Formats: sequence, structure tokens, C-alpha cells
Amino acid sequence: MDIRQQIHQMKLDAPLMAASDIEVRNAALGLIARALEEGQDEIFAANRKDMETAVASGVPATVQKRLRYDEGKLRDGIEGLRQLAGLDDPVGKVLLERELDEGLLMKRVTCPIGVIGVIFEARPDALVQISSLCIKSGNCAVLKGGKETANTNRVLFGIIHDAATRAGLPEGALLQAELHSEIDELLECDEDVDLLIPRGSNKFVRYIMDHTRIPVMGHSSGVCHVFVDRDADQDMALRVLVDAKTQYPAVCNAAETLLVDRAIAAEFLPKASRALAEKGARLRGTQEAVDLCRPAWEAGEAPEVELMGDDEFSTEYGDYVMSCKVVEDVCEAVDHINRYGSHHTDAIVTASDAAADYFMQMVDSAGVYRNCSTRFADGFRYGFGAEVGISTGKLHARGPVGLEGLVTYKYRIVGHGDIVADFAEGRRQFHYRDLR
Amino acid sequence: MDIRQQIHQMKLDAPLMAASDIEVRNAALGLIARALEEGQDEIFAANRKDMETAVASGVPATVQKRLRYDEGKLRDGIEGLRQLAGLDDPVGKVLLERELDEGLLMKRVTCPIGVIGVIFEARPDALVQISSLCIKSGNCAVLKGGKETANTNRVLFGIIHDAATRAGLPEGALLQAELHSEIDELLECDEDVDLLIPRGSNKFVRYIMDHTRIPVMGHSSGVCHVFVDRDADQDMALRVLVDAKTQYPAVCNAAETLLVDRAIAAEFLPKASRALAEKGARLRGTQEAVDLCRPAWEAGEAPEVELMGDDEFSTEYGDYVMSCKVVEDVCEAVDHINRYGSHHTDAIVTASDAAADYFMQMVDSAGVYRNCSTRFADGFRYGFGAEVGISTGKLHARGPVGLEGLVTYKYRIVGHGDIVADFAEGRRQFHYRDLR
Repeated sequence: MDIRQQIHQMKLDAPLMAASDIEVRNAALGLIARALEEGQDEIFAANRKDMETAVASGVPATVQKRLRYDEGKLRDGIEGLRQLAGLDDPVGKVLLERELDEGLLMKRVTCPIGVIGVIFEARPDALVQISSLCIKSGNCAVLKGGKETANTNRVLFGIIHDAATRAGLPEGALLQAELHSEIDELLECDEDVDLLIPRGSNKFVRYIMDHTRIPVMGHSSGVCHVFVDRDADQDMALRVLVDAKTQYPAVCNAAETLLVDRAIAAEFLPKASRALAEKGARLRGTQEAVDLCRPAWEAGEAPEVELMGDDEFSTEYGDYVMSCKVVEDVCEAVDHINRYGSHHTDAIVTASDAAADYFMQMVDSAGVYRNCSTRFADGFRYGFGAEVGISTGKLHARGPVGLEGLVTYKYRIVGHGDIVADFAEGRRQFHYRDLR
Repeated sequence: MDIRQQIHQMKLDAPLMAASDIEVRNAALGLIARALEEGQDEIFAANRKDMETAVASGVPATVQKRLRYDEGKLRDGIEGLRQLAGLDDPVGKVLLERELDEGLLMKRVTCPIGVIGVIFEARPDALVQISSLCIKSGNCAVLKGGKETANTNRVLFGIIHDAATRAGLPEGALLQAELHSEIDELLECDEDVDLLIPRGSNKFVRYIMDHTRIPVMGHSSGVCHVFVDRDADQDMALRVLVDAKTQYPAVCNAAETLLVDRAIAAEFLPKASRALAEKGARLRGTQEAVDLCRPAWEAGEAPEVELMGDDEFSTEYGDYVMSCKVVEDVCEAVDHINRYGSHHTDAIVTASDAAADYFMQMVDSAGVYRNCSTRFADGFRYGFGAEVGISTGKLHARGPVGLEGLVTYKYRIVGHGDIVADFAEGRRQFHYRDLR
């Protein structure tokens, strides 16, 4: 059977997976956690093989970091599995219970989405995290990992699949795609795959979005902003700015652009440039920003700000570099963010309620923060237990996506031979009564 | 400005519309209702012009019915507007309020989606209904109606836009596209349009889905089933079947396929064929169904059942015709529905809880009904006040979509200079406390 046929079979089995008991799904998570512990030597050996190939083929150090699967990542994965097992069942929740008329009862009940395709570059830990989220939510999952960690992925998948079936989940609940060619085959399965979750570089996610009719959940870029308002506590602004840019620059919720209110720009920008420099980050800015920092630079008190063009404000550096711009006020800051941002997460630092309210109302992003770092945009930090990713789309789940984003709902109606003609012809009327 | 530039401008204005007071949005609905009443002569005159053209160009009667905009439709539209004005504001609802740690407060708050493109064939009443739903939910809307009712649409849009702006909504809250070429231009605006809602034929909706990167909400086909189980009250089954097929055959929630349990097929099928014939509907079926009905036909007690092929089971007749098939049991019925259906709405008639539970759990459709007609699948009948359409997709809104389907949410976090480094380096821990 080629991958398309396997996925079609999975689609037919999905209702069985959706009907599986929460006890069985939780037991599977427990068995997977134990099996990962017991299989760690095998896992690390496979990962070492992948790392040797990566090093030999000159993969950059930053990427190597993402390929490595070590004790730390295993521990986090196992901890995540145990947390997940402790969470409520997201399936079968009654969201609405309404009597439409005497003896005609409607319920809106959550259910799994069905078949979810997960495609990720590097990061073997994503395989563990996302497959366990799919299991908890009663979804079938097709997993395609990056070739750089093919050995690690194969071992991890084997352990997870074996434990899941031992717990009593259907054989076809999980499927691994290994050939690169199978990515495009997967993208064609819009009849059988209900949702795609890509994890990887902007270019990679963009490619997925552009080559399938299957709905895609995620984000291609994270261009987050920190706006420092005229009424900001400037020391607080520096703390937040430095954290948002330098605490982990490679991730999507790291800030890429600093916007400063003109009223305080001359005072704040040199301080910002110095504070960032102390953490190894540099600013690039418009002519105005460059000029405002020049005196401090000439006095040897702050590094020089490199000149950049307006067309570069959508750049996601993912590195110790940051764009900056002076804006007239919070209104211009909002316009800039809605125009150049990626609708991910944006923060204002201000003591003014009026400015904060305007910013949080008008910025069209999944996360709008006041006086805290954009780095908080994360499923774990939001208390969701785990996340499949962060969505910058506006339909279905938005922002960090946990179990809730992996379920939909169906309407169940139970009657006693009720027909529409009776209502259409006036013999009966609807009498809505919400029972919850 | 061409339509693309106008839509881009609308995108920039969308946050203003999203921030509009509910009083203003409700006032707009009230003014629109009054203006439609006062403008009815103008509206009907425009519609007469459209109807004359339609008749002259030989548009079929069934379509003419959808083009006509008469007192009845106007009254329904005005009634819908008044109901809508009475509903709660879907915007600004706090879905989650959680303290992440001392002084770090997160809220998940509903907000409008932004810019919604509405493309509909015929049915001028859809223009009134959907534009008013967009207004109530704080969304900007681009409306493109069918050319067959160009005059009616122009007059309706003029009245609605004028009343909306008089109420204080932004000039750019509503936009009308009139040229056919503008459909393809609209489909290209994936940077500025957040959601597309097409209303029309399968072919039309399919075209929209295939030619845009903008998320599309709706359904291309409605192949609904009625399964009559061996434990069904057969008189009830006949009532439900006849209603589901003949009460209004042209709509998506009308049943297209009858599945009958083999244990009762010989007894039930001839009765079904006769009952449907009394309402002018005929059955097409597999060889087994044809053979089972032959005796009754030869005895002149029931009409003949025409032979059909298995490859026709995904046919949406939208007419007084119905496919039928004999199945071994509820399991085969479920497999057939999941394979040939459109995941819209499917019903089982049975007195057996076991059969009903299995059916409602395993059928992968937006609506799963027991002992009632599929024709109940409708936003008004569900008590949603109005609907933009019915979604057979599984992400975001599913089934009949009302106001809830036109909002998303954003995460607002307010802190006091909180940074992730403190949590990453163990100086602080998250202490989740849900405040609602």
C-alpha cells in the first residue's frame, strides 16, 4: 500500500479512534512515557548517528541544537506526557444543550477533528509532543519528520506506535511517512486529511500552505513588536525589550522590531541600544533612529545604529538583531504593526491606560500584551499543558494551540419523529430552552 | 481606486469597525430595517427589472424563485434584522481569564475576524442577511452578488450602506463589488481578506474554494442520508423520510439517499416508494432494491424503482428524486455515509439505543440525528437567530453558522514588567489560577 492508500484507510478508521475511551488514550500516554524511558539508549544511539551525519555534512550549530535529542529533551517529553495524561478529556464535552421544542433535544458535543497530518523539520521532540496531543484528543496522525533525524524519528515512532497499540488504540491511529516524496503525496490527500500542522522554517511552512487544499494550522513568520510609549517606565521598557529580543532570539515569539514614541526617542533609544549590546544584540533603524543615537555613539556611550530601509520592517531575524523606528504616537505604532507585523504577538510598555487600551483593542494580533515580554506567547506558559504550535490564522484556534485546537464539534439531535413540515405549516412552534 | 485598493483600505479600517460600540451596531441594524421598509417600492421596482431580464433570457422557474425579492422576503429580512439587534454582542466576551502568576493576568477575549468577503449567486435576501450578521459581529464585508439581480443588489446595498453610515459605522465597513471580473480580484486579496463565504451552487462554491488562498467557510454539497434501522417504528420512518426528501428538495439539508436495514427492506421499501410517490418523489436504487420493490410494482401497489449504479451515491439531486440502498446493518450504513456523504447531516430512525448511539458516534458529519428529519439543520431552527451558511468543514465553525462563526479571539496579557528569563532561570514559577 502506498502512503495515499494507507491514509485513506486511516480516514475510514478515524471514527474508531474518535470513539476510544479516555482511559485507553491516557493509558497509551503512560505506556509511551515508560517506553521512552526504557528505550532511551536506543533513542540516543539513533540520535548520535543522525548527529554524526549532520556534523559531517556541515549543518550549522544552531540547527544541530534542534536536531539533538538528549536527556533534557527526553525528560521534558516524558514530563509533558504525564501532564497531558492528567488533563481533562477534550472529547465529548457538551458545549450546548438546547430543547428546540417539546421532545426535540439538541446537543453540541466536542469530537476529534479526524486525521491530522504533522510535518516537521528537525526537532524530534516535536514528534513526541504532537503525536501525544493527537492521541489525547482522539485524532489519527500521519507524522513526517525531517530527514536529518530519520534514525531518531524511526526509533521514536516505533516506541510510540508500539505503546499506543499495546494500550488498545487502533493499529491505524498513527502512521509514519519516511520518504521525502511522501510529503507531496500527503499534501494531495485533501479527501482524507482534515488538518495539516507544519513545524519548521518560514520557507517550509509557506511551501506547505501553498501546495495543498488541506487546511493548515500554524504560522509562517513571527514578526513581533515592542512599542515603548511616551508614558512608559523606561527601566521596565528596557527589561521587557531585552527579554523579548535576547532571551531566545531564534523563536517566533522573540521581538524583531522596536517602536519608540518620538516624545522619548532621543532619551530612550541610546539606552536601548546599549542594553541590547550588553546581551550581544544590535539595532538597525531608520535615518531618524540612527541620528538620535549618533551623539551617544560618538561619545562612546552606545553602539552605532545601522541604517535600514522601510521595506525591511517585515524581516524576521531570529537572531541578535532588531529593527527600530521612531513613531509619532501609539496610533502610528498600531498602524505600523498591523501593516508590517505577522499578527503573532505585540507588546506595549506604558503607564497610560488610554494608550494601552487603544493598543490592545486596535492591534490585530493573536496576542496583545501590556508591560510584559512577547516571549510569554507559548502554550506551556499559558497553562495549556502542551501545544501543537502557534496559529496566526484567525479561524479555528488562534495563538498558542493546545488540545482545544485539535477538536471540533457535532450537533446531535434526538426527536420522536419530528418533521419540519409541522413547523413550516404552523402546526408547531419552536420553544427554545437552554438546559446548559 | 480599483477593488483591490479599496479592500486594502478596508483592511486598514477594520480595527475601527471592530472597536465600534454595540449600541452603534444595533442602531445600524434598526436603521437598515426601517430604510428597507421605506425603500420597498424602489427595491421591488429594481427586482421587477431583474425578473423581466431573467424571464426574457429563459432562466428556469426554480432559479427565478430564488431571484425574486418580494414582500415575504422583505418581511423576513426585516424580522431577521430586528431579532439580530436583540441578540447579545458576540464581541468582547471574556472566554478565559487566568492569572499566570502574581500580577500577570491573561484574558482570552472574542473579537471580529476582520474583513469578510461574501460572494453569492442569486438570492438578494442573502445580501441583507449576511451583511447584517457582519455588522452585528463588527466585521467589514465585501459583497458580490449575482449579476442576475444586479439592480436589486445595487438598491439593497445602497440602502444598507447609507443606513449603516448614518448610524455612525465607518464609511468603509461595507463595500459592494459589481463587476464579474472583481470576483477573481477578490479571490486574490489573501493579504487583506480574512474569510470568504460563498453562497450558491456546488459548482460555484467549488470554484471559489479552488481559486483562492483565503479560508472559505461553507459547503459545496449536501448529500444527506436517512437510515431506517431494523428496530425503527416504520410509520415514523415514513414521516421522517418524506419530510427529509420532499418538504423542500432544492436545499442542502434535504435527504438524497435512503439506506434501509436488510432485515426490514422487503417490507419497508415498497411502502417508502409509495409514500414518496404520493409527494411526487421517485426512488432510484441498487439491483436488490429494485427487485424488492418489483412485486409491489407488479401488483400496482407501488411505483417502479429505477436501477442506479454505486458510483452515483454521491449525487445531490436537489429534486424529487432519491437514491436508495439496502445495507446489512447500522455498521454498513455508517460506512456508506462516511464514504459517500458530504459530512453535512445524517439521520437514523430506530427504537434501539445501541444502534442510535453507534450511529451518532461513528457518523462523521456536522449533524447526526435520531428520529427526526435532516431538514432541521438550519441556523434559525437551531435558535441562532440567523445564519451565514452551513459549514461542512471541521475547523472553526461547523454546521449552521451564526454570529459565533464570525468572531475569533485574542489573548490580552497585562503585567508589570514581567520577563520570561525570570521563569526560565527559576527565579519565578507560574501559578495558574482561573478567575473564570
